[in-house]
Amino acid sequence: MARALDEARAAAARGETPVGAVVTRDGAVIAAAGNRTRELNDPTAHAEILAIRAACVAVGSERLVGCDLHVTLEPCPMCAGAISFARIRRLYFGAEDPKGGAVTSGVRLYGQPTCHHAPEVYPGIGETESAELLRAFFRARRDPMSGV
Amino acid sequence: MARALDEARAAAARGETPVGAVVTRDGAVIAAAGNRTRELNDPTAHAEILAIRAACVAVGSERLVGCDLHVTLEPCPMCAGAISFARIRRLYFGAEDPKGGAVTSGVRLYGQPTCHHAPEVYPGIGETESAELLRAFFRARRDPMSGV
Repeated sequence: MARALDEARAAAARGETPVGAVVTRDGAVIAAAGNRTRELNDPTAHAEILAIRAACVAVGSERLVGCDLHVTLEPCPMCAGAISFARIRRLYFGAEDPKGGAVTSGVRLYGQPTCHHAPEVYPGIGETESAELLRAFFRARRDPMSGV
Repeated sequence: MARALDEARAAAARGETPVGAVVTRDGAVIAAAGNRTRELNDPTAHAEILAIRAACVAVGSERLVGCDLHVTLEPCPMCAGAISFARIRRLYFGAEDPKGGAVTSGVRLYGQPTCHHAPEVYPGIGETESAELLRAFFRARRDPMSGV
């Protein structure tokens, strides 16, 4: 999760919502990404989607069997769906997102009968740092002088 | 929807699940795509995601304000989420997908309090042709001689 937090900090430095994600297999990082929706003009360019796409290129498959995803914020419905399609084994996430999440919040996608693959879910990993990054980012956007 | 059906047929010819999508604005097509998950080794490469990403490039924005999406199959949770983030105005879709859909089936994402933008939804447009394309594709996969 330390590497995912680094990606989140790098996203904040680019003016993007600070969320970072890492895909690992057997403890080794095979892809890492931060949110780039603004830079790429791409509403699908969440950290999880970019990390999954890069990992699929790295392994040469659309399925990441035996791979785990570490992300600083609870995934939204779009990313939770992508995680399921990619057959991610374990999902570790930091802060819960009651307003936009879809794992332990909102539609709780992995508990639905229409979900065909659910990862094991480990919430609250690196939660304090993940949440503080997001709070500081949005505080600074509301009051540009607060981060000075 | 005729153009989306063309994209679905082209996807089937490539050995991909036959789903096609088109983004329009003021009646003009600004992006069109078929499913390419296998070709690209990308579990996120559903027709809707590819069409939205291409449309965002075309308009130079991560928001497709005033744009409509036409897709041959009811969107899954991943695509329904992307449609919401992209601020699609109207969603027209063909066949319902009780096993994997997230609009009129499953989690019914646009009726959830955690959904921040819901398009207007018009189901059943081109439903018969859309569903028959999918049925023929999966029939041929089960019995490779049936399509001969």
